[in-house]
Amino acid sequence: MLVILPGMDEVPLRGWRLRCQIIIFEANTRVGRFFDLALIVCIVGSVVVVMMDSVVEMNLKYGPVLQFFEWFFTILFTVEYVLRLLCVGQPWRYARSFLGVVDLLGFLPTYVSLFLPGSQYLLTFRVLRLLRVFRVLKLAKYVGEAKFLSQALRASRRKITVFLYAVLTMVVVLGSLMYVIEGAEAGFTSIPISVYWAIVTLTTVGYGDISPQSPLGQCLAAIIMVMGYSIIAVPTGIVTAEMAFHSSVSTESCPQCSAEGHDTDAKHCKI
Amino acid sequence: MLVILPGMDEVPLRGWRLRCQIIIFEANTRVGRFFDLALIVCIVGSVVVVMMDSVVEMNLKYGPVLQFFEWFFTILFTVEYVLRLLCVGQPWRYARSFLGVVDLLGFLPTYVSLFLPGSQYLLTFRVLRLLRVFRVLKLAKYVGEAKFLSQALRASRRKITVFLYAVLTMVVVLGSLMYVIEGAEAGFTSIPISVYWAIVTLTTVGYGDISPQSPLGQCLAAIIMVMGYSIIAVPTGIVTAEMAFHSSVSTESCPQCSAEGHDTDAKHCKI
Amino acid sequence: MLVILPGMDEVPLRGWRLRCQIIIFEANTRVGRFFDLALIVCIVGSVVVVMMDSVVEMNLKYGPVLQFFEWFFTILFTVEYVLRLLCVGQPWRYARSFLGVVDLLGFLPTYVSLFLPGSQYLLTFRVLRLLRVFRVLKLAKYVGEAKFLSQALRASRRKITVFLYAVLTMVVVLGSLMYVIEGAEAGFTSIPISVYWAIVTLTTVGYGDISPQSPLGQCLAAIIMVMGYSIIAVPTGIVTAEMAFHSSVSTESCPQCSAEGHDTDAKHCKI
Amino acid sequence: MLVILPGMDEVPLRGWRLRCQIIIFEANTRVGRFFDLALIVCIVGSVVVVMMDSVVEMNLKYGPVLQFFEWFFTILFTVEYVLRLLCVGQPWRYARSFLGVVDLLGFLPTYVSLFLPGSQYLLTFRVLRLLRVFRVLKLAKYVGEAKFLSQALRASRRKITVFLYAVLTMVVVLGSLMYVIEGAEAGFTSIPISVYWAIVTLTTVGYGDISPQSPLGQCLAAIIMVMGYSIIAVPTGIVTAEMAFHSSVSTESCPQCSAEGHDTDAKHCKI
Repeated sequence: MLVILPGMDEVPLRGWRLRCQIIIFEANTRVGRFFDLALIVCIVGSVVVVMMDSVVEMNLKYGPVLQFFEWFFTILFTVEYVLRLLCVGQPWRYARSFLGVVDLLGFLPTYVSLFLPGSQYLLTFRVLRLLRVFRVLKLAKYVGEAKFLSQALRASRRKITVFLYAVLTMVVVLGSLMYVIEGAEAGFTSIPISVYWAIVTLTTVGYGDISPQSPLGQCLAAIIMVMGYSIIAVPTGIVTAEMAFHSSVSTESCPQCSAEGHDTDAKHCKI
Repeated sequence: MLVILPGMDEVPLRGWRLRCQIIIFEANTRVGRFFDLALIVCIVGSVVVVMMDSVVEMNLKYGPVLQFFEWFFTILFTVEYVLRLLCVGQPWRYARSFLGVVDLLGFLPTYVSLFLPGSQYLLTFRVLRLLRVFRVLKLAKYVGEAKFLSQALRASRRKITVFLYAVLTMVVVLGSLMYVIEGAEAGFTSIPISVYWAIVTLTTVGYGDISPQSPLGQCLAAIIMVMGYSIIAVPTGIVTAEMAFHSSVSTESCPQCSAEGHDTDAKHCKI
Repeated sequence: MLVILPGMDEVPLRGWRLRCQIIIFEANTRVGRFFDLALIVCIVGSVVVVMMDSVVEMNLKYGPVLQFFEWFFTILFTVEYVLRLLCVGQPWRYARSFLGVVDLLGFLPTYVSLFLPGSQYLLTFRVLRLLRVFRVLKLAKYVGEAKFLSQALRASRRKITVFLYAVLTMVVVLGSLMYVIEGAEAGFTSIPISVYWAIVTLTTVGYGDISPQSPLGQCLAAIIMVMGYSIIAVPTGIVTAEMAFHSSVSTESCPQCSAEGHDTDAKHCKI
Repeated sequence: MLVILPGMDEVPLRGWRLRCQIIIFEANTRVGRFFDLALIVCIVGSVVVVMMDSVVEMNLKYGPVLQFFEWFFTILFTVEYVLRLLCVGQPWRYARSFLGVVDLLGFLPTYVSLFLPGSQYLLTFRVLRLLRVFRVLKLAKYVGEAKFLSQALRASRRKITVFLYAVLTMVVVLGSLMYVIEGAEAGFTSIPISVYWAIVTLTTVGYGDISPQSPLGQCLAAIIMVMGYSIIAVPTGIVTAEMAFHSSVSTESCPQCSAEGHDTDAKHCKI
């Protein structure tokens, strides 16, 4: 399977940069696979540190330890980022790519917080590191599955857009109606709040911080609930029909004719 | 694709009324597409103004600005409505059509509120403008998708009616039973309230404003929850089966024989 | 389509009893259809009366009117029940049938409440009248749809039983675990209560009357939620697969060979 | 149907141990079926005793009776466990198997609680007995159904893993964002709590113990809800597509060629 990596170039690198590239970007060699696994452990570990750091009791108790690990991971990711820049053919293309920006956002906030004392909330951006794991997923057999899912979602993109627009309209109209019926005493203080309540109800979340008090309001709320309960069938139906259609057709390209679309249980190339 | 527009007539108009008709009702020309886009922006903008106007703090702070925009959009929609009336062949037929009434309700409340001081709540009807976007959807490639969805829903209409009636019966019987078991102390003050609670529970919304207190009531509530959790499979199954059936058959009419129902991957007209 | 009615006999009745039977049990004649419609109106009306009667303010205000309608419907249903008994071939078989018992329960509580003053809650059983509408559904084109739904549900009966047993086990084990983790202070006062909470959480109802307080408890709760969110796919998948399978096969018996199972779009009998 | 039982050996046992083995492990004979049914009754009964014992009022009122039943079931399960050990060919293999450990955990805590006074919570492990019923399910016609379900779930294992990882990432990133937006005053005291809230919201559980207060927070919450409402389509689609695929292929092995995978409606062996 040929994976097009961001920044992979037609002009091959040489020497240590080539070896470096193979370790960092490829997952076929033993060292490359070990690198990917170590990276996942570091990413998950650093996110756990960020989360624990935000808990007040943890911060008071283990502050220095967390601080140490935070800087350990930050320097590690910085080194990794610099190496990536050095050993790709087109560093600038990598730096501007989505994953490149995510890589940068994974360690930059820690440095910035040194100079800007009030930037505590900026540190939260470090959880974006989690997105980096998606890159490493390439090592696993999960690529085909992720591809299948994103394909089915992309194919049903437009139908889901129409559905979401219909839901949005429903929610604005019904929320406004509720604002008229219930009014400020029951917590429906404005149309945006009422629309928020309508979303909470239609999606069957149901916090209960705002709930209708008048019989007419409860009647309309019941209709919204049953509606939300029934129309969930629509996105489900869209995605399921798409998946049932795709699962009968192979998503792996044929090794002989390199075309996709053969039957999943085909033994011979049909071309 | 031939779209039957409300008010489009066999007798073609001439001169500026024809040009006007093409701009307002058709989406094939560049001007027509621009008009549709501008209309969508105005509709969304005007609904945002209505929503912001209902928030007390916004109203106090930006009252005059919101007022100005409200009148700007109202006059715009009035002009548009008059133009539509002028450049369709059968104005009366358009005025009585569903979209015509929605168009009218989009600006009428603002004028009425000038003469009737207490008609503040009437202004909420202006959010119905959102429905107007559905008309403009014709410009997009979303027509086919919307058609597919409404077709699948229409085909499963009767099955969903049977399902909803069964749910309604369940909810009334179980709610009444709960009224007997829990009684007024636990908040189940009357059968309608208990039925409302049963709907909140069966649809898995779960506000928590009323919840069973006695062991027997909690037992019945648990049964209702598991029931609601399981029978959501029914509408989902109905719609999905319908969609899977429809998605294997094309919904676009054949350019040669102008009949629908060809296979989606057919290359030649089968008639 | 041949409908086997409860109490319909091989020995045909004669005279007024035959006419009576045709009106009450058949839906093909005009009078029969009118009778069915009137019955539905009476059933829905009487259930509305029962519901309104349970609301305290309604009872104080319109007590006598509701009382009058209650007795009106009660006497009507009594007369209907007696007529049904008279004009079926096997009255005893009808009286013991499920619908016969439901018919009886629809009016008996009102009479009993005359003699037993404290039997107020008994009156709630009158909402069971709603079940009677299912009998009248035979008049409609909804028979086929209801048959389709119940067929799909019956076919997936065993799979859903296995699923529900698995859910039950999960809920008991996880609820008990939560009882150990959270304990009585957080509201998890006993295993049954904790199991009730686990059901509320797994089915995504989420009242919020009991919710975990400790980090470990919230962790387990999060796992239960994600589990409940994911495994809803199982009943949905079961029913959908069953429906997709059935919808490609006609459920109406062939008029020529009187066998079911022809393709839905078949024009000619395949036997 | 050949069931591979844990501990069933190639070397057949003799005498009373053989008869014992047939009764305990097989379900084909009348005595074996009776044994399985009695075991289910005992398991369910003992779990009910454990649950009732945890309710304070029950414990005060019926303490001694519950204690008696607890010891009755404990001794019964101990005897059954010893018999199982005696009449399987490889006792050690059985003892280490999953079901063997569950069997042991079903009665051990009661003995341990005699010596360790503070081990009250240990007793809760006795609800694990419920898992034992799965063993007995072999007696029923539910084996095929359970096999079908677990097969469909196993086949969609990887897709669901990818989906769950995507959900996890979403929930961590959105929860952290919410922590920044809302802060400690609204109850979002730390990132882990915010992530917990995001899970509660995305899975549409919606306890309502924590809920956003600021307009921006409510906006993001609304997006999370609609997201959770829509992406439930993904696991449902995965499992449904898998089930629809499997249900068209028989899971019972062919009696002639002993291979699986024949069409469900095939009358003759295709090999």
